[in-house]
Order: sequence, then C-alpha cells, then structure tokens
Amino acid sequence: MWQELYQRLQTGDIKSLARCISLIENEVPGYEELLQSLPLSSVPVIGITGPPGAGKSTLVDALIEALVKHEKKVAVLCVDPSSPFNLGALLGDRIRMSEWYNHPNVFIRSLATRGSLGGLHPKILEITDVCKAAPFDYVIVETVGVGQSEIEIAGLADATVVVMVPEAGDEVQTMKAGLMEIADVFVVNKADRPDADLFVRNLRLMLAPSFKEERFEIAVVKTVATEKKGIEELWQKMDAHLHSGHYNKRKSWLLAEKAWQLLVKKRMQGFDKVALQKNIEQQMEQQNFNLYNFVATL
Amino acid sequence: MWQELYQRLQTGDIKSLARCISLIENEVPGYEELLQSLPLSSVPVIGITGPPGAGKSTLVDALIEALVKHEKKVAVLCVDPSSPFNLGALLGDRIRMSEWYNHPNVFIRSLATRGSLGGLHPKILEITDVCKAAPFDYVIVETVGVGQSEIEIAGLADATVVVMVPEAGDEVQTMKAGLMEIADVFVVNKADRPDADLFVRNLRLMLAPSFKEERFEIAVVKTVATEKKGIEELWQKMDAHLHSGHYNKRKSWLLAEKAWQLLVKKRMQGFDKVALQKNIEQQMEQQNFNLYNFVATL
Repeated sequence: MWQELYQRLQTGDIKSLARCISLIENEVPGYEELLQSLPLSSVPVIGITGPPGAGKSTLVDALIEALVKHEKKVAVLCVDPSSPFNLGALLGDRIRMSEWYNHPNVFIRSLATRGSLGGLHPKILEITDVCKAAPFDYVIVETVGVGQSEIEIAGLADATVVVMVPEAGDEVQTMKAGLMEIADVFVVNKADRPDADLFVRNLRLMLAPSFKEERFEIAVVKTVATEKKGIEELWQKMDAHLHSGHYNKRKSWLLAEKAWQLLVKKRMQGFDKVALQKNIEQQMEQQNFNLYNFVATL
Repeated sequence: MWQELYQRLQTGDIKSLARCISLIENEVPGYEELLQSLPLSSVPVIGITGPPGAGKSTLVDALIEALVKHEKKVAVLCVDPSSPFNLGALLGDRIRMSEWYNHPNVFIRSLATRGSLGGLHPKILEITDVCKAAPFDYVIVETVGVGQSEIEIAGLADATVVVMVPEAGDEVQTMKAGLMEIADVFVVNKADRPDADLFVRNLRLMLAPSFKEERFEIAVVKTVATEKKGIEELWQKMDAHLHSGHYNKRKSWLLAEKAWQLLVKKRMQGFDKVALQKNIEQQMEQQNFNLYNFVATL
C-alpha cells in the first residue's frame, strides 16, 4: 500500500496526498517509513499569521489566485487554534476559500489543533512535508497569530508573513512585540484606510534597529486583499526573502528546530497529559506528594 | 552543605534562598535531591503579565506595598524575555522596585530568559518551588506577555493576572485573544484615562460567554497603579480565585502541566539545539538528507 501511495504522491495525485495526511494524522503504522523516504525538498513553506480580523483568509485567497495565474501549484493548510479553556474564542476567522477547493492546482485542507493553548497541530511538520513531496510550488500554512501558534510557525515556515491592519501607532510598539520577532515579511492589509501610511511609517521605524544589526531587512508590503491590490508585490518580497543570504543562513536553524520538535515527540511517546493528570490525582491522595519525586519515577 | 542549606531555607533565610536559586540555575549536583525533599506547598504563585507599557512593574510595586502592609512575606521573580533574533526589543520595561530590595519580608530576583522566543526561564518551575519553601505567603512571577512566556505562565501560576491599559474597544477583540485565554483576573491599569469605562465594559462583554459555560467568572479590576488605587481589590479578587471551586479543579491540571515540562527536560537531557544544528549542517553535506531518518538515529 505505502509503496504505491508514495509513487502516486510524487506524481502530484491529490487523492493520494489527502490519504497520506489522514494516515499520518491517525499514526497508521508505516507512516514513519513514508516520511523517512521523502527526499530533501526545497519547496518553500509560507507561514501566514496575524491577529483575528486582519484579513488573512482574504489575503490567502488573493495569493492563491496570483499563484494559480502564474501556473503555480499551491497547497494550503488552515490551522484553527482551539484551546483547552475556551473553545471557539479564537475562531470566527474561518476560511472563505471555497472557490479553490476544486481547482486542479490547489489543495486546501483544514486542520483542527488538538494541542494546548493554540498550538498549530501535533503533526503539522509531517503534513507540510508530505505536501512538499506532492510536489507543490508553495505550501501555505495559515493560522491566527496567538500564543503557541506564532512560536510554532516561526520554527516551521521558510518565510513567515505577518498580516496586520492599520491602527494607532502606539499599538505597534506594544501588542505586536511577539509578532515582530517572527516576521520575515509584514503585510499591512486594508491599506486603503486613512491611517495606513502613518502606520507603515511607524512600523518601518520600529523595524529599523534590526536592520542596523545587519539583519535582513524586513519588507513591509501594503495590500488591499479584497481588491487584490499589492499581492504581486507580496509574492515578490516573499521570494526575495527565500533567496536572501539571511534565509540561507537560517536553513539549518530551521531544521534543528524541527528536529528538536520531532525528538521531543519521540522521547515523550507513550505519555499523555490526561493520563498524567489522573496519575497525579491518585498520588496526591497519599501524603508527601512531591512533583520531582513523581517525575523521577516516570 | 545541602542539609544545612535546606534547614536554613525553611526558616526563611534569604541568603540561603538566593544560594539555592544559584545552585539550581547552575545545576550544581545535589539540587535535584533538594527539590525532591520539598514538601507539597500551598503557597500561591501569582503570574503577572501583559503587554509592554501596561504598567506591570508599577502594579507589582504597589502590590508588594499592600502585602507588606498586611505583614505578608512576598517573593518576586522578574523574568525578562530575551529573543534569539532581536535582543532588547522586548525590554524597556525594567523593574523599578528597588525600594523593596532591602525589606526583610520581600525577596526580589531578576532572571534572564535563555530560551527561544521569550520563554520564561529554563528553571522557573524549580525556582518558584524553592521560593515557596522559604516560605513566603505569595510568590509573584512578573513577565511581558508575548509569545512563549504567556503560554508558560499559564502552566506555572496558580492565579494569572493580565494587565492591560484602556484602548479602543476594537483592539480588545483582536490582539488580546492569546491573553484572554490565560487570565484568571484582568487588571485595567491607568483606569483614570477617559476611555477606561468603555474598555472595561467591552472587556466584560467579551468575557461573558465563558461565564455562560459555567466557567469561573473572570474578575476585571480597575487600577491606577501609580496612585496605588484598586490594589486591595486586586488582591481580594486574586484570593477569591484561589479559593474558588474552579481553581480547585485546576490544581491537578497545573501539576500535570508542570510534570510534563519536567519530564520533557529529563528526556531531552544531553541534547541542545546548537549541537543539533551543527550536526545537521554536517549531515546536509551528504546526499539524501532526511530529517526523519536523522531524528531516528538520535
């Protein structure tokens, strides 16, 4: 089964890709061998993130259109962060990319996170890797930029695009610090708003120090995704980043991040937090519960 | 050495506590046995987080004053997130709590993060635990709420206080989604600003759905930290949370989160990302590098 699936996957057969993803999600025996047989791929993973309401879905939609027009093949993974505390609070930002669902050069898959506090998806790394093998020209991973997901996207994407909307300049300096850290390209969407230019100027001022430190200059692109404005420039800047010396130096860092995550998963196999919690509840009934002693016994 | 240190620690000797923390930070042999001998403590850990500029330091300062006035002993750990990409971008929020450094009932320690993307500190769990044993009435952990640190504080603190300043209501619904998830108590600081009441109203509206789901009601407290206003109410709400059924149910969840983190550290002992990256760089020179094969050999 796997041999055949792998061969079909490499011809770009969409059904085989969908099947591979399901097999990986369900950890069907043999999926690890499949992953181990994938060649090192240079297909770039584009991470698209930003706060809810920034227009990420519309932007991804416009980006798909631009890529398809240039006869590129594109896979899109939409990750909806869920949370153990308050399911649904982070949603309301659902994709509206349905017009692409049946296009032969476009593959779209929604993935629900199952981790804690808005991580991407326990198997996101493996899933992007089979997409790369399908092969596509670009793999896009779209997610809301909150909590864990913004950390994870920085360790997954070859180019991370952070989408924002124009707001008070004061805000740029406060809330976005986390997103600042991970962006390779900034998109100021809804750039037809009156305060857009001021916002872009403030953003560029803020980004200036990193430039001085000989860092790759972070591009700021203005878009109006609903009118497909600025999309070609965004693509250009993404590609410029992917061909930069800065990115080239970061490649092995990215692989080390990924290796680390895979290694943690491997070493933690057989443990799950729910069972751990039950175990702790039992232990706590006894006297002298000590967390460090408990962990030492595991 | 350890036996004596442990005994002095339990009498509340500040020098011994400082020494214990240093020994833990440097992983001096014997530190694990020290941790394993600590009794299960009910000293609450208060996490205080929020965006830069929200006034966290001033608030912590005012909180120390209120606690000291009521003859409480308090330990404060200030964590400055650093980042592998852009050191310093997250700072500028330094503590100005120096007046408390020599007070007998106050212990303050600054910890620099050494992890990636703004995590708290590789030994934050162990350090809070020795503080609890010292013993104090409260252990406060203060950090900027960006990226990894906001995730980690939710798994560390018995009560997480998220500090914000009044802003446009629109913003509450967007950027704060990550902070919303982790708050047990919200503080709207600088509540003497003209738009404070509107902000508080919007915040309460946003929090309402979680209340309906029978969740513990998240308190919203207005403060003006520079004038020490609202501090007693904050303390009250923190304590109310710590005595709530909601918190009681969460206790074993918190312990499971902590056990998980300790277990990951234990299982990943001997690995570090820098060495991993170098290893990968060497492997990549050969043909057919495959990440999954590479990890399988580790």
